[in-house]
Amino acid sequence: MTTDDDATALRLDREHVFHSWSAQAHLNPLVIAGGLGSTVWDHAGRRYLDFSSQLVNTNIGHQHPRVVAAIQEQAATLTTVAPATANLTRGRAAEKVLSHAPDGFSSVFFTNGGADANENAIRMARLHTGRDKVVSAYRSYHGNTGAAVVATGDWRRVPNEYARGHVHHFGPYLYRSEFWATTPEQESERALHHLERVIQAEGPSSVAAILLETIPGTAGVLVPPPGYLAGVRAIADRYGILLILDEVMAGFGRTGQWFAFDSFDVVPDLITFAKGVNSGYVPAGGVILSEPIAKTFDDRVFPGGLTYSGHPLAMGSIVAALDAMADEGIVENAAAIGRDVLGPGLAELAATNPLVGEVRGLGVFWAVELVTDQATREPVDAALMGRVKAGALARGLLPFLADNRVHVVPPCVVTPDEAETGLGLLTEVLAEVA
Amino acid sequence: MTTDDDATALRLDREHVFHSWSAQAHLNPLVIAGGLGSTVWDHAGRRYLDFSSQLVNTNIGHQHPRVVAAIQEQAATLTTVAPATANLTRGRAAEKVLSHAPDGFSSVFFTNGGADANENAIRMARLHTGRDKVVSAYRSYHGNTGAAVVATGDWRRVPNEYARGHVHHFGPYLYRSEFWATTPEQESERALHHLERVIQAEGPSSVAAILLETIPGTAGVLVPPPGYLAGVRAIADRYGILLILDEVMAGFGRTGQWFAFDSFDVVPDLITFAKGVNSGYVPAGGVILSEPIAKTFDDRVFPGGLTYSGHPLAMGSIVAALDAMADEGIVENAAAIGRDVLGPGLAELAATNPLVGEVRGLGVFWAVELVTDQATREPVDAALMGRVKAGALARGLLPFLADNRVHVVPPCVVTPDEAETGLGLLTEVLAEVA
Repeated sequence: MTTDDDATALRLDREHVFHSWSAQAHLNPLVIAGGLGSTVWDHAGRRYLDFSSQLVNTNIGHQHPRVVAAIQEQAATLTTVAPATANLTRGRAAEKVLSHAPDGFSSVFFTNGGADANENAIRMARLHTGRDKVVSAYRSYHGNTGAAVVATGDWRRVPNEYARGHVHHFGPYLYRSEFWATTPEQESERALHHLERVIQAEGPSSVAAILLETIPGTAGVLVPPPGYLAGVRAIADRYGILLILDEVMAGFGRTGQWFAFDSFDVVPDLITFAKGVNSGYVPAGGVILSEPIAKTFDDRVFPGGLTYSGHPLAMGSIVAALDAMADEGIVENAAAIGRDVLGPGLAELAATNPLVGEVRGLGVFWAVELVTDQATREPVDAALMGRVKAGALARGLLPFLADNRVHVVPPCVVTPDEAETGLGLLTEVLAEVA
Repeated sequence: MTTDDDATALRLDREHVFHSWSAQAHLNPLVIAGGLGSTVWDHAGRRYLDFSSQLVNTNIGHQHPRVVAAIQEQAATLTTVAPATANLTRGRAAEKVLSHAPDGFSSVFFTNGGADANENAIRMARLHTGRDKVVSAYRSYHGNTGAAVVATGDWRRVPNEYARGHVHHFGPYLYRSEFWATTPEQESERALHHLERVIQAEGPSSVAAILLETIPGTAGVLVPPPGYLAGVRAIADRYGILLILDEVMAGFGRTGQWFAFDSFDVVPDLITFAKGVNSGYVPAGGVILSEPIAKTFDDRVFPGGLTYSGHPLAMGSIVAALDAMADEGIVENAAAIGRDVLGPGLAELAATNPLVGEVRGLGVFWAVELVTDQATREPVDAALMGRVKAGALARGLLPFLADNRVHVVPPCVVTPDEAETGLGLLTEVLAEVA
């Protein structure tokens, strides 16, 4: 492999590959050819410390040998099989996923990723409750799908047609409070009041589910204040509404827990997952069902499905990833890195750089909010963020940027040294642009 | 591996795995542990001739050594990477896919499967035309997703919110004509008239796209009559509507052509694919964009995306599968099997068994329609189809059943001998239940 390969990769990309969430004529993508642990490289051997985990999914790091070997072995045995069959690897993956869920969760519906995990959780909640509306936060991302089943013409469309059904509310975000709150307790209390008022105004008996990212991720690693999630659970229970927690980005180690909600006093009715469950080595996601919801579909047909549900190659990678994470203490490492390195380091950054308005997070899941003015909290503009990106890449640091924020989201396997190094580079970059 | 593994696979499945499109308490899934070519087997070594291609996806057969090796090699190099990067394997996969598309197709947007391929094609069509409605057939399946992006709260929801937008029409199906037609020509002409009337009544300037499976698959392998698809193209052009052809099931060899529309006088604006492109060895799908639509997003952000878009492991399997299919004449084999074995054999079956109302298809894509009475064409009931399934499995034939039909859909690599064997077993089963 040479720099010729980098040029070819870039040429083929710009000629033929249509990119997500982008204007296509304004792209200059970084070539990535390989990786290991918290490092990735191009064909020429230029190395980057991956403080993005790509799209916050390589929790176990790049190219973990046990997961690579499991994929290779499963590839040699059986790559794909129809979901209607029984498959040993799939059964083991379900068992393994459930072993990390709270009591009372009994089965797993596997999907290709996070979007269709949420699709199916919403479908389950609507059919279980006989209601159609889903309340979710404005500051949230739950996937990019929204039309295929209503374009479908056959019977599978009919139980999935909803002319209405999505309502949005504001969640807690003290730094930019929508509720004129000044303390975490006040933010929590007022955000709960707002959520309940939205539900009351929509008609509680029309609401099937409250769908929340346990910690809204791309929206800014918005760690909920004390009491908020327990309060949401209480509201859901009061009105017979199901609580779906989207753990696609926050789950499987990211927060230093198997599930992000393990840090809070709450148990949902449905859990959706993807990314960290197998670090995205093979596309996979799913819904973990609590028993009452699973039972709804004992005698009633569940009107949802997909060709690659429980795909053996994906299942093999889940079994190996969850085993390796448990055996090697990778979740505990994420917690320690957050507590001992990223937490203190980012606090110091916030104390010393005038651009930093707030840092927040836990485990290997942090956001650094950049502002032009500490008092007004005005977000920095895209031009400045472009300079942050360029400065980081020039130093061999691959950052994750969203709006006016740097998300510090290395793999859960990041070492203290690597975390220190990355923090140092970020500190340099932000000093330079300040 | 022993029969213990079969028992364990079945136990774990029934305890923990939630299945697609099913009532969960009424399942007795077949255990599948491995496969090769057109054969699959359980742990005890019980073998089945796969006349289903699982969910009509293993076009290249099970465990093709070149695709398995490519997956293993890519797994060793780089399993996953963010879609915003450039990646050589991804560029090559796009180039390879485009090499089979007509002139004027310039780029590929990769997804996880067929549903999100259609999601993104619909999104592109709506934004390109500035219209919202999508016209598709009642007898169609385009995927199971329909809510995640409207549950999403952030800006990515807004360009994807459509309170209306899906309209259904009847397509041609001479055996059960909706148009009182008695000849293929009449069915084609009247189906086109009906489609145009639906569009006129909906308001042509509100219609972004006509979305069709080139040959509706699960709906019954409904091969369009002469002139129909060319007529649809003309209607689309008359009203400035885009034509999206869903080639998820029919594409990449199934019909004995690279694309099913290669057999018809039509070129679409957008092509969606999945399944056969890599035989589902790794979850993947995508949209092939014609140049005018790609250009729409040169300076304008395309508001769609997903974490595993252009996933390296999936891309490696696409490159290897398309290379092997070309080198080994697998598409040509599918054509020959249809012409020389399945076509004549099924015609004979239709002529001799009173249950068979009609057979239709091409390549390795056939439907056998079972009726209680040749004159009234009344479909047989689920109980009889259950006997067909049991009879086939008992004989070591894995069938694909849909409503009152047996779909004869072996891998494109099926040999003449295997095809004869499968036909013989099917003939026995249908004689038994007749």
